[in-house]
Amino acid sequence: MEQIAENRCFGGRQLRYRHPSGTLGCEMVFAVYLPPQAEAGPVPVLYWLSGLTCTDENFVTKAGAQRYAAEHGIAIVAPDTSPRGEGVADDPDGAYDFGLGAGFYVNATQAPYAAHYRMYDYVVDELPALVEAALPLDSGRRAISGHSMGGHGALTIALKNPGRYQSVSAFSPICSPLNCPWGEKALSGYLGDDRSTWRDYDATDLVGRAQEQLPVLVDQGEADDFLVEQLKPELLVTASEAAGYPITIRMQPGYDHSYYFIASFIGEHLAFHAANL
Amino acid sequence: MEQIAENRCFGGRQLRYRHPSGTLGCEMVFAVYLPPQAEAGPVPVLYWLSGLTCTDENFVTKAGAQRYAAEHGIAIVAPDTSPRGEGVADDPDGAYDFGLGAGFYVNATQAPYAAHYRMYDYVVDELPALVEAALPLDSGRRAISGHSMGGHGALTIALKNPGRYQSVSAFSPICSPLNCPWGEKALSGYLGDDRSTWRDYDATDLVGRAQEQLPVLVDQGEADDFLVEQLKPELLVTASEAAGYPITIRMQPGYDHSYYFIASFIGEHLAFHAANL
Repeated sequence: MEQIAENRCFGGRQLRYRHPSGTLGCEMVFAVYLPPQAEAGPVPVLYWLSGLTCTDENFVTKAGAQRYAAEHGIAIVAPDTSPRGEGVADDPDGAYDFGLGAGFYVNATQAPYAAHYRMYDYVVDELPALVEAALPLDSGRRAISGHSMGGHGALTIALKNPGRYQSVSAFSPICSPLNCPWGEKALSGYLGDDRSTWRDYDATDLVGRAQEQLPVLVDQGEADDFLVEQLKPELLVTASEAAGYPITIRMQPGYDHSYYFIASFIGEHLAFHAANL
Repeated sequence: MEQIAENRCFGGRQLRYRHPSGTLGCEMVFAVYLPPQAEAGPVPVLYWLSGLTCTDENFVTKAGAQRYAAEHGIAIVAPDTSPRGEGVADDPDGAYDFGLGAGFYVNATQAPYAAHYRMYDYVVDELPALVEAALPLDSGRRAISGHSMGGHGALTIALKNPGRYQSVSAFSPICSPLNCPWGEKALSGYLGDDRSTWRDYDATDLVGRAQEQLPVLVDQGEADDFLVEQLKPELLVTASEAAGYPITIRMQPGYDHSYYFIASFIGEHLAFHAANL
């Protein structure tokens, strides 16, 4: 991996790297914040998954998370949201909610997407192996979080790999891709029409059959324009109650889907992860 | 003024307005953060002046200042950095450091810029009169701050109007436009070749002849690429010492010119202003 940017931030280092990804078959860019504590030795690491249309930069520039990461001594790794570059198939109409910037953290099985769209394997395996070997990160203390499509990614990845993460949180997650337009478009495109294959990428479905639990925190703005049609936290609430899986889901009055919402509560999410790491 | 955006943020409201500016002869957009305390009555207000190429949005989305503004109960008003729109003259070559996005907070006297480029009057008079009448802001408790070109703007405006502001701070300010390429280009273009007319827009010169003092805080990154050629804080240090004008100028090791630097110290600037407001 090649370092392409560095900025001092809250006494630590905001870094950006480029690397060839074998999993995705293209060059990828990701961001890492190393808190001051990383100068002295390995620190725990939070993986942050962004939402539709984002790159590795949105969270890093807009969330203000570095302050809390420096306070708690937690590194943050923020990957891009899809494979990129020439030869990587996009939405046929160039829509924002499929293809580039919209990998949905799945391993695609359908042509032409299966060739590159393997964001699940990239986030779970390739990226952690890469950064945890190269940087002072403690691979025994991982957390994962994300926003919207990235909240869906964080929840599904953690629910399927409870041993790999100490805690998971999400802002405004797509709680059930099986039951919303964004999810139906993405999962049919990447996985095909057999909806039984979608279940492994549906947090609501996964909660109902989880064998092992980890701490889960979800924040959802009540003024979010996508709440009713796309996000549907009530499905996750019902499923977690039915399964006896304790999930803290907080409805936040007045907050919308923007980074202003994330910025307002990312400090509490970092504190939540710090308590579990 | 017409509200064009609103987002809840740290319990307060991040707002954006559009209005016809009589001073600038064009339509302008600005941002306002109202902390939760503004629900109960007028709050003190910090005016933030951005740097070259910025609009009203850079500071609002990248600095993370709302957290501290909410903590201290301070509103933040962030104008654009120049007049905009059809008929507003730009740099003949479209350069980033003159014309659009580069108003330098002066009242231009030279054609074709004199017709619109009156950012000094806009920031000092028109904008405060507008927002302080329309929003719950206490016009008796004002502070001003800014970055780079905006740090120059904040320092010169406060030094010339010590009664209008309780305190001033700056990140990486252009300390002496008389003595750097950015300043020479801008002031010759806006004010003409008579350098004596530039002195009223030069913080280092103004410090030397200030009749009244106010609290001043400056932060400057030591790894700032513009430090030696453009910013020259040493000139401000020398002038303030010669004049007996106490100015806190802090050199910050490792920090550069970016918003990562601003984000790292904006909390201390808000606390500084809160203590003086």
